[in-house]
Amino acid sequence: MASKGQIDDLVSANHILYLEGVVDGFGHVSLRCEDDPERFLLARSIAPGSVTAADIMEFGMDGEPSGADARKAYLERYIHSEIFRARPDVRAIVHSHSPSLIPFGVTGGGLKPIYHMSAFLAGGTPVFEIRDEGGPATDMLVRDRKLGAALARTLGPASFALMRGHGAVAVASTLKQVVYRAIYAEVNARLQAEAMRLGPVTYLNDAEAAGATRANEQVIDRPWELWKTKAGNGRRMAQGKAEGALRRVKRRG
Amino acid sequence: MASKGQIDDLVSANHILYLEGVVDGFGHVSLRCEDDPERFLLARSIAPGSVTAADIMEFGMDGEPSGADARKAYLERYIHSEIFRARPDVRAIVHSHSPSLIPFGVTGGGLKPIYHMSAFLAGGTPVFEIRDEGGPATDMLVRDRKLGAALARTLGPASFALMRGHGAVAVASTLKQVVYRAIYAEVNARLQAEAMRLGPVTYLNDAEAAGATRANEQVIDRPWELWKTKAGNGRRMAQGKAEGALRRVKRRG
Amino acid sequence: MASKGQIDDLVSANHILYLEGVVDGFGHVSLRCEDDPERFLLARSIAPGSVTAADIMEFGMDGEPSGADARKAYLERYIHSEIFRARPDVRAIVHSHSPSLIPFGVTGGGLKPIYHMSAFLAGGTPVFEIRDEGGPATDMLVRDRKLGAALARTLGPASFALMRGHGAVAVASTLKQVVYRAIYAEVNARLQAEAMRLGPVTYLNDAEAAGATRANEQVIDRPWELWKTKAGNGRRMAQGKAEGALRRVKRRG
Amino acid sequence: MASKGQIDDLVSANHILYLEGVVDGFGHVSLRCEDDPERFLLARSIAPGSVTAADIMEFGMDGEPSGADARKAYLERYIHSEIFRARPDVRAIVHSHSPSLIPFGVTGGGLKPIYHMSAFLAGGTPVFEIRDEGGPATDMLVRDRKLGAALARTLGPASFALMRGHGAVAVASTLKQVVYRAIYAEVNARLQAEAMRLGPVTYLNDAEAAGATRANEQVIDRPWELWKTKAGNGRRMAQGKAEGALRRVKRRG
Repeated sequence: MASKGQIDDLVSANHILYLEGVVDGFGHVSLRCEDDPERFLLARSIAPGSVTAADIMEFGMDGEPSGADARKAYLERYIHSEIFRARPDVRAIVHSHSPSLIPFGVTGGGLKPIYHMSAFLAGGTPVFEIRDEGGPATDMLVRDRKLGAALARTLGPASFALMRGHGAVAVASTLKQVVYRAIYAEVNARLQAEAMRLGPVTYLNDAEAAGATRANEQVIDRPWELWKTKAGNGRRMAQGKAEGALRRVKRRG
Repeated sequence: MASKGQIDDLVSANHILYLEGVVDGFGHVSLRCEDDPERFLLARSIAPGSVTAADIMEFGMDGEPSGADARKAYLERYIHSEIFRARPDVRAIVHSHSPSLIPFGVTGGGLKPIYHMSAFLAGGTPVFEIRDEGGPATDMLVRDRKLGAALARTLGPASFALMRGHGAVAVASTLKQVVYRAIYAEVNARLQAEAMRLGPVTYLNDAEAAGATRANEQVIDRPWELWKTKAGNGRRMAQGKAEGALRRVKRRG
Repeated sequence: MASKGQIDDLVSANHILYLEGVVDGFGHVSLRCEDDPERFLLARSIAPGSVTAADIMEFGMDGEPSGADARKAYLERYIHSEIFRARPDVRAIVHSHSPSLIPFGVTGGGLKPIYHMSAFLAGGTPVFEIRDEGGPATDMLVRDRKLGAALARTLGPASFALMRGHGAVAVASTLKQVVYRAIYAEVNARLQAEAMRLGPVTYLNDAEAAGATRANEQVIDRPWELWKTKAGNGRRMAQGKAEGALRRVKRRG
Repeated sequence: MASKGQIDDLVSANHILYLEGVVDGFGHVSLRCEDDPERFLLARSIAPGSVTAADIMEFGMDGEPSGADARKAYLERYIHSEIFRARPDVRAIVHSHSPSLIPFGVTGGGLKPIYHMSAFLAGGTPVFEIRDEGGPATDMLVRDRKLGAALARTLGPASFALMRGHGAVAVASTLKQVVYRAIYAEVNARLQAEAMRLGPVTYLNDAEAAGATRANEQVIDRPWELWKTKAGNGRRMAQGKAEGALRRVKRRG
């Protein structure tokens, strides 16, 4: 069973990704259970910005819900289950349609670390072409284990992969890290596209990227606390819905 | 007579389109009456972000208001009446000056689905050139039935059309779908322009687009609920006006 | 003496221009007095977003304050006085550093109406080169009557002029119109730059621009009311400053 | 000992830089002590948007904290200490990863004053290449006095320097000035990149830049007061965190 701490953090991660513009009504973030590495946590099929603790479900390595949980799950939960299976080092995964990454995914990739904040992009960002495994007539969704496994193979040992005509996945050994990576991959894409228009770009070399990645991991709490502050505001925004409805009722009553 | 449910949804749609940046002070969204397919609902001439249930008017297929409703209507209501006439499958229409679409409209179109979210753009996005029907000296507005009919012919069976030097129209079989399409057409335009600067783009093929369109329709409630939450906040913003005026009075009193 | 209505509208215009991103801490908007065409209203030297009715000063056609008003005035008030002198048809003027216009001003202009909303840009947008009148060593500011008169000559009969390395001026026969023009000139610049990267652009022709300008003038109240709603919120934001200070005092007390 | 006024201003500067998008979870701003030019103020290792007066630490010219303050300090405090040592005229420093500056830093610089607001960029913006002093395998951070001194040498007598693959530093003789420079350097970068795509750019010449710099210094209070207003709101946002936590507790209690 998942701890309350893990669930609360996962709720925060959902809100953070929404408020930072990485996800909109779609996209999801998962966390491997700390007491059972063969299970992971993921919200039911709901917009990330609206997730509460009660929406968190538990899944097994086959991508199916634990026990008798009959709530509607994300169609693409196999992204998470298959990457967790293939990568024991990974404990958290974000799948998004992060806007600035889409143009890189449909033009062959080439995303590289333009500054130390996105050093985790070093070593290349593979592009998942769903046609390779699913043929030319899929609906673009990673909707079964076979497609999830193909995505995991494309990802390989990397921290990040683009998905052609779809989005991206970020993976990390902690939830804070994966949120950080999802956010700064988006920033890197935007800035790299701009830099490529100005002239030839000097990227971080592999040694610089390795050093910067280690350094970033030591200060990961700093942005996380900031983002959680905003997530607290985001929660209030979600509550606004109920209040707005109440006010409408009163006005008409 | 329109149901309260339809009117409330149309009010929400107006607020959503405003808060998502598809419309500003201008633009409009219509909904075919569920009990009378020869009539449709559309706000009186007012900024979409300020629409309330009391602002919704009813129109016939000639683009004229039902009964003795003498309130000022949008000049371009013929966009809606003529498309509803020509397309029995269409139950909701958005007309906007959605910013990222303007550059595509004035350079010959070429808008294509860059990712699964905008799969509805498959099959080509026609461009309405008002000079073809209205000659070289119009005021750019679709201000009569003849121009509305010409726009409907340009649209043909498509889900989306650009209007040169003006904006765009999105159509769908439900209100939720048309709001979705208006929002993701804007996103697609922005990302496609960026991708075209990076290199040759792989768009969704027709089979992928058809599959993704079906898949998207099954999860349409998810973004709609999220957008409605924000629309609740938008309503509060509109109320702010009255409160602000009240406060000014008090301060001076 | 200026009417309360004119002053309130000018305060709203200041807030609107700030909230729509046309001005930041700098920029100003003026209004010719309705009871004395030889005088005009302009805020004292203060950020537009912070202007209140008490900040509005009155100036003569020499750019100097009426009566014994010794408050610090904007250095560049001669932009307003000299244009009002040269253009009796003009009753309101905005000077801004509106961001998307700066790139056009430093590359020779070429701003044209890309859609009906910015039809007022038809006929060409002249570029004011301060070196022509002020020589190669000015501080870029229109800080005297001579420079103001040179700017007015560059503007000629147009609605809009760019200022190289500085910003822009919009003029109109009403305050609502000039606010509208300042806002949509910014939008036009952003969209035109984007369109020019996509391919050859079809701009509005002169007849279309003239027709669209007339049509826009008839619906000018619609965006104005929307923007005023936001300006009401902006006023609350300004009040936040005092509240924040109060809270800090309480916490420390 | 630092005065309460200096500390309050430094807190405001932190919030302003966050709210204007110059810093995110990372970046820092320092202020030389008014009563002891050999000491300077800088927050402990915390996100700038969350800084309060209690977070301000005091450092000496060796980059080490005064007295027995054992709180975690920014790793890169040597940026500040070494520039303060090398530049007696400098009393305030901002280090940021300001987004629009990153593309210029990785493509060889070339940032120039596109308009009077950023006149302080005249005379060239040097680019700090950490490989020159630190070799090809640093973690990109200015984490010791030697690297700080190298950065100070690159900066020389300038007001601004880019840091390849990292960010930028702005320096000034007052805190208000350095905040202004950090904000308008970001704006200039964005607008210059856009202008370079439109055609050959006319930049401010040296005389214009010198004149505009003097003129800007005389009105520095105007944007500062505006930004402080927003910073007051930012403080409330930070408080939201505690309130949000409290509300969650209550709901569960």
